[in-house]
Amino acid sequence: MHKETYQASIQKAIDAQANWAQIPAPKRGEVIRILGQKLRHKQHDIAEAIMKEAKKIRAEAMGEVQEAIDMCDFAVGLSRQLYGLTMPSERPEHKLREVYHPLGVVGVITAFNFPCAVWAWNHCLSMVCGNAVVWKHSPLTPEVTQLCKQAWDEAVKQSMPNQSFDDLLQIVDGDKAVAEWLADDHRISLLSATGSTAMGRALAPRVASRLGRSLLELGGNNAMVVSKHANLALAIRAIVFGAVGTSGQRCTTLRRLIVHKSVYHDLLTKLKKAYTSLVVGDQFESKTMVGPLIHEDAVLAMHNALQEAQQKGYKIFGGDDCGDCLVRPAIVEVDQPCDLVKRETFAPILYVLTYDEFSEAIQLHNDVPQGLSSCVFTDDVREAELFTSELGSDCGIVNVNIGPSGAEIGGAFGGEKDTGGGRESGSDAWKQYMRRSTITINYGESLPLAQGIQFGD
Amino acid sequence: MHKETYQASIQKAIDAQANWAQIPAPKRGEVIRILGQKLRHKQHDIAEAIMKEAKKIRAEAMGEVQEAIDMCDFAVGLSRQLYGLTMPSERPEHKLREVYHPLGVVGVITAFNFPCAVWAWNHCLSMVCGNAVVWKHSPLTPEVTQLCKQAWDEAVKQSMPNQSFDDLLQIVDGDKAVAEWLADDHRISLLSATGSTAMGRALAPRVASRLGRSLLELGGNNAMVVSKHANLALAIRAIVFGAVGTSGQRCTTLRRLIVHKSVYHDLLTKLKKAYTSLVVGDQFESKTMVGPLIHEDAVLAMHNALQEAQQKGYKIFGGDDCGDCLVRPAIVEVDQPCDLVKRETFAPILYVLTYDEFSEAIQLHNDVPQGLSSCVFTDDVREAELFTSELGSDCGIVNVNIGPSGAEIGGAFGGEKDTGGGRESGSDAWKQYMRRSTITINYGESLPLAQGIQFGD
Amino acid sequence: MHKETYQASIQKAIDAQANWAQIPAPKRGEVIRILGQKLRHKQHDIAEAIMKEAKKIRAEAMGEVQEAIDMCDFAVGLSRQLYGLTMPSERPEHKLREVYHPLGVVGVITAFNFPCAVWAWNHCLSMVCGNAVVWKHSPLTPEVTQLCKQAWDEAVKQSMPNQSFDDLLQIVDGDKAVAEWLADDHRISLLSATGSTAMGRALAPRVASRLGRSLLELGGNNAMVVSKHANLALAIRAIVFGAVGTSGQRCTTLRRLIVHKSVYHDLLTKLKKAYTSLVVGDQFESKTMVGPLIHEDAVLAMHNALQEAQQKGYKIFGGDDCGDCLVRPAIVEVDQPCDLVKRETFAPILYVLTYDEFSEAIQLHNDVPQGLSSCVFTDDVREAELFTSELGSDCGIVNVNIGPSGAEIGGAFGGEKDTGGGRESGSDAWKQYMRRSTITINYGESLPLAQGIQFGD
Amino acid sequence: MHKETYQASIQKAIDAQANWAQIPAPKRGEVIRILGQKLRHKQHDIAEAIMKEAKKIRAEAMGEVQEAIDMCDFAVGLSRQLYGLTMPSERPEHKLREVYHPLGVVGVITAFNFPCAVWAWNHCLSMVCGNAVVWKHSPLTPEVTQLCKQAWDEAVKQSMPNQSFDDLLQIVDGDKAVAEWLADDHRISLLSATGSTAMGRALAPRVASRLGRSLLELGGNNAMVVSKHANLALAIRAIVFGAVGTSGQRCTTLRRLIVHKSVYHDLLTKLKKAYTSLVVGDQFESKTMVGPLIHEDAVLAMHNALQEAQQKGYKIFGGDDCGDCLVRPAIVEVDQPCDLVKRETFAPILYVLTYDEFSEAIQLHNDVPQGLSSCVFTDDVREAELFTSELGSDCGIVNVNIGPSGAEIGGAFGGEKDTGGGRESGSDAWKQYMRRSTITINYGESLPLAQGIQFGD
Repeated sequence: MHKETYQASIQKAIDAQANWAQIPAPKRGEVIRILGQKLRHKQHDIAEAIMKEAKKIRAEAMGEVQEAIDMCDFAVGLSRQLYGLTMPSERPEHKLREVYHPLGVVGVITAFNFPCAVWAWNHCLSMVCGNAVVWKHSPLTPEVTQLCKQAWDEAVKQSMPNQSFDDLLQIVDGDKAVAEWLADDHRISLLSATGSTAMGRALAPRVASRLGRSLLELGGNNAMVVSKHANLALAIRAIVFGAVGTSGQRCTTLRRLIVHKSVYHDLLTKLKKAYTSLVVGDQFESKTMVGPLIHEDAVLAMHNALQEAQQKGYKIFGGDDCGDCLVRPAIVEVDQPCDLVKRETFAPILYVLTYDEFSEAIQLHNDVPQGLSSCVFTDDVREAELFTSELGSDCGIVNVNIGPSGAEIGGAFGGEKDTGGGRESGSDAWKQYMRRSTITINYGESLPLAQGIQFGD
Repeated sequence: MHKETYQASIQKAIDAQANWAQIPAPKRGEVIRILGQKLRHKQHDIAEAIMKEAKKIRAEAMGEVQEAIDMCDFAVGLSRQLYGLTMPSERPEHKLREVYHPLGVVGVITAFNFPCAVWAWNHCLSMVCGNAVVWKHSPLTPEVTQLCKQAWDEAVKQSMPNQSFDDLLQIVDGDKAVAEWLADDHRISLLSATGSTAMGRALAPRVASRLGRSLLELGGNNAMVVSKHANLALAIRAIVFGAVGTSGQRCTTLRRLIVHKSVYHDLLTKLKKAYTSLVVGDQFESKTMVGPLIHEDAVLAMHNALQEAQQKGYKIFGGDDCGDCLVRPAIVEVDQPCDLVKRETFAPILYVLTYDEFSEAIQLHNDVPQGLSSCVFTDDVREAELFTSELGSDCGIVNVNIGPSGAEIGGAFGGEKDTGGGRESGSDAWKQYMRRSTITINYGESLPLAQGIQFGD
Repeated sequence: MHKETYQASIQKAIDAQANWAQIPAPKRGEVIRILGQKLRHKQHDIAEAIMKEAKKIRAEAMGEVQEAIDMCDFAVGLSRQLYGLTMPSERPEHKLREVYHPLGVVGVITAFNFPCAVWAWNHCLSMVCGNAVVWKHSPLTPEVTQLCKQAWDEAVKQSMPNQSFDDLLQIVDGDKAVAEWLADDHRISLLSATGSTAMGRALAPRVASRLGRSLLELGGNNAMVVSKHANLALAIRAIVFGAVGTSGQRCTTLRRLIVHKSVYHDLLTKLKKAYTSLVVGDQFESKTMVGPLIHEDAVLAMHNALQEAQQKGYKIFGGDDCGDCLVRPAIVEVDQPCDLVKRETFAPILYVLTYDEFSEAIQLHNDVPQGLSSCVFTDDVREAELFTSELGSDCGIVNVNIGPSGAEIGGAFGGEKDTGGGRESGSDAWKQYMRRSTITINYGESLPLAQGIQFGD
Repeated sequence: MHKETYQASIQKAIDAQANWAQIPAPKRGEVIRILGQKLRHKQHDIAEAIMKEAKKIRAEAMGEVQEAIDMCDFAVGLSRQLYGLTMPSERPEHKLREVYHPLGVVGVITAFNFPCAVWAWNHCLSMVCGNAVVWKHSPLTPEVTQLCKQAWDEAVKQSMPNQSFDDLLQIVDGDKAVAEWLADDHRISLLSATGSTAMGRALAPRVASRLGRSLLELGGNNAMVVSKHANLALAIRAIVFGAVGTSGQRCTTLRRLIVHKSVYHDLLTKLKKAYTSLVVGDQFESKTMVGPLIHEDAVLAMHNALQEAQQKGYKIFGGDDCGDCLVRPAIVEVDQPCDLVKRETFAPILYVLTYDEFSEAIQLHNDVPQGLSSCVFTDDVREAELFTSELGSDCGIVNVNIGPSGAEIGGAFGGEKDTGGGRESGSDAWKQYMRRSTITINYGESLPLAQGIQFGD
């Protein structure tokens, strides 16, 4: 993309937003409701494109579009909420309240692995909040992007026929350079970027140096603690989906297993058995559970990590390169944790560690730079509550008897530390997409000062 | 301060915080309640130190300590709130909720002009949220700092006698270098910095490059719109306090006046009369309304700005240098707005502009890089509501018939654009001092996936 | 309806609710989303039935169904919210939170004048909250009821095809006796009743004597204050729609006008002119603005009230009986307020009073037993803010420069005093449809007591 | 008390409230802060009076005053919150929000067993919300009442010296008749009554018939489920405090034990041993754990219940009448639940039942008319989560590994069914003490109607 095209895009977004911000939020919500209908109609088409471009299997591709649909419903509800607070003033004949206003233009950078859902999280909230969106999608997923844009354009056309809101969603094509344009552009009020920690580290200071806002969803290194009190059958189902789903290429993929010594052998045996029966293959085949990695670089990265593991003397199960970017998911038994385990390799490698005391499990769990998702499998109240307490997991997402991936849209999604600290999707994530005014009104005839200050009287 | 002393300080804060986070929040609140009592007892002493070091007059110094006291009361209430949400899961036998946990160590950088209140905003919230505080105060206000620290230490000693929480509040002395240490230190989970926009621009990227959190309260360029429907007598009182209080050295100081042409002459005449009667002098004298500027550099900056104004041909009223850092507040009549007006000069200079249409007033109002505080004086419902709407002021603080300064602690304090985007004090500002866990619990015997995904069943 | 049929209905609702409560709220929300689609498709049909049975004109009938549709969207959003709070415990290793659970069976009594919207308010919230509904509609609106029920049944069938939720909505036919059965029935967890104050006074003690919950929306006696600062043209439009819309048969109909003496003559002159041009006639005629009253009793009640007004010497404008339940709306000039003015006559009679001081206007305004809706027309900030302050209107709905009727669904709807105190529709009205659990969990090994109590240790 | 004295009291409260409502809430909060200080100073004196009049042991009496002190801190925090919502309107140039206003005069009826804390719950919230309080205390606790009133009067005098708020708290002496006056009195906007279910059934319809508000805290019949996964040692501590604390005369006293068969024998044996070591005696003796019952009627009621139990063939342990209103707590082993078990006898009788399946335990648990407090002792996640789910306890208070009594003030306190449905103390209980205004403001020049209705245009 040429810089001039980029500049024109941003300007179009700015112009459209100026009008959009004046449309009452419930009317904006109505456009998003129609978007939900469009996405429902196109669910299969978008899923097909996701299968093709992101190489997901059908169940996951359909699930991803479903998530976008759910976001629409949620955002429609928000359109009559976007609640600020009224509160009493300390001064007589004064009123105090806060109101949330549209922010401006939101830049959205999405990664290849969730080409539709992450857009939807940002788009639905941005739009209901009265913003325009400039979307820099992954270069790998242009078709998904076009289908999403189409759905939005149709929704706008249908519900706002007489008004010119055609430019509210801008697509900007490109790679790192375009991401940097967005980061540096003071007209982008909020930059919401999903991708690697390296990307976050590169973009965040650029946004910060112009005092802009960022919302970062970066790398994860998600673990499951399997306690001696765990329901192992349940745990194994969760581990398999968590570690091999999307071929290990979700930000919430299960990457580390922290297992109580007493159940280690039993668990590993059963897990290997489950891994053995995994169907690896073409993502379009209905029986496939593990499709291809996104590209040969990913296969190489997996290969390198496994090689490093081997050099450290870890036992490796699976991990075979089956050609055509297909790999068999790997289990790596780690006797002595090292830097390799603390790194996020975007591939289906599951590191398995052991522990004796539950406090040790938590310590191991938190001892990585990332802080996205986490889970414990246990039937014990104390362990469950401890893991979800201030002394437990330091992640943004904390699950009990559920794997680390597959969050619902109603909660806030995101994580701490190297994951970047942003929160998307549900709860009050929308507040990041608005600016707050703290408003005080004096309707009396005198001018009392706060804190009871007397000045010159 | 030596780097090793600094390192030791941070380590002490970390160690103390590890214990503090486990103290139930209502017990932490009890310590803050006692802090409030201590501050009440020391209110005069601290106010004296503020008068001496920050050169405020007594009414403002006492008011500043009062603000710290109010914050204590507010934080005590929060100690049983810190509300997260429970919400329904889309899956049977699942529960979804979010909980806020302590964050770790909070770095607090305060400026000379609010040496006590800004600390209190950050300290009270940090402490009730279960964090430790490392406080880099202005080099100009060591005594205020020591008195505040003393009050806290006494409160801790009194309410937690058997436990070692002595290190929860660390003072780090120094200037820019220490600020940069804090910005670069990944052990500082949140850096809350109050100061100039230049400082924010320097520190924010450093924090961002380590994916840390910042809370920035930077420069303001606060304006008042005086409508033809204004109560002029009320407006004049507010202008005088807003523009000359703290000798124009508050972040919320009134710096620009945007006056409807029909009332311009009348307003200016009365305003000049009011300015004439201002008592400029020693801040310890009870009749003084305008004390000294903080140092000769500030006098120079004011001088330079006025000189620039003169060169542009603006009419200047007042602004005399009275020696001993004393100046008479200046009124500058601006016929054609320029860059000078868009700049924050930390001194009592009030630029006066005129307008015809209300929309023009808003346009003029927002046409500065900063976005802290703003106000309109009008008796007209439409103007008042428009100014506080999404089409009105783009500031974080928006007042009607109140000057731009003197916010109450119950609302969120802070601003947009070059002001840095942070929010301190009341409302949900505490959330920035905590990390959120989104928790999902499965208490059934099966493992349904979100978005209805079926995997390998 | 026979008592046995009633009993069977309630039992069916109870049985269906037991299953419904276990369906995750977001899935329940999905049924409501489909209900919204069904209502969109049936909007014209239901509106026709409303025109026939409730005798509304088309614009109002369509608007009423639109309100039901809006409620569906709002409830869908709620289905992932229904927020309780998590909060810190004062005891170590304890957690505190509150969760909202389904309530059971909700009885809904609706009146003839909003045969669809009031049902939708209650039905959408009840259903999303996990309750069943037993609906006693007005005997005058059976067809509207059937169409609404049909829409719901279709939505259930479509979205929950394999499950038996057919009995979630029960229609119970009948009059006062059936209302009393519901009031006395301890299986009805909440009785939401809309109707006259007399009805409320009769039913509320019956519900209370079994310690049940009621939600009452009873009579209104809604007024508009027209200040000397009012935009008269705007006021007149609002008065006409407020006073004659739905032929004066809304609970929020404008019944009293409190006019500043200085604008009284001008306003009355213009208002009479506007009244003269009102088209009274068949509600199916497109040019009709004022359709028939609901029945001859209503015409008689209007006649009696006007006769009483005449006896008191009030000047009466309009009020003619045009046959076929058609009447011309009446304006009654009240020089000395009396009991007649404090009574709600469900017909298009507008009492006009005057005032000198604004405080007097407020006093007159509040001096009726009812407390539903209110408004002021003024361009003055002080009057607007005072009217909406604790010293202003004592009603549940308070409008500025808007008539008293036509609330949006996002706010809570309802009123104080003889209006019954209930709140329906938006904001947190849903809480009345759920029961709250305050949950405390001890995950430690000891048993500290609240308030630090030591017992037997 | 004479009716005229009563009338005068109410009138005084009304007059004081009219002024109080205009005091900014944070200033009202300041008075409550001082009240907290006064209660701290008087804690021992009030506790002594509670020991004398309510016959509590010292630890519980001190704890009760502590609860009042905690409420003060909580209410001070609320004084800058009392949050309503701002929200977007569906119409352009419209704003929508809700604000909470003072209610008027609150009637508070307290029982002998919490003569200070229940007052404090109601008083602190009423006062911070801007109401006056008319307090009808138990005839048994006049001295506690006087000491509380004194504390309040001193707080008012100290903080509002120049204003006449002396009449904000009115004490009305008397019994049932005075309670009925309050129930019937339309000037009492809210009647908050704590006592027996019989009392609630008598008063609630009277309040309802005048369309007033009630807040009822009535009888409980609180149970603990002891699962096979329970920590028995912990359970036994909780049972003992729960069942015999305050000699079984708390509304949250543990009255029923539902024990898994596999641990029944073990638990009973240990429990009886614990009961044997209970020190029954004079409440002023420091070693006493079980003081006297409140009066001979209570002893008789206990005697009658035990006699009925004996006639049913239940095994009884303890229950001896020791004279001077002293009794030994009783354990009654119930093989076949009956009406006796469903009744609340206000004395230390603990009925023990058994179960096989957890669902059976829940069924037994909920099968009483009351719905106040409940708990489960279990280390099993599934049982804990089920018990706190919509399929678990139907009570307002649900505890895990904590006995049924001793709630913290931060949560909402109260229960469902025959317990009356009210909520006091923390969370959003304060909303019951205020009236809500839903405010919509039109600041445009046109008058769009909600739901897009067109009328006469």
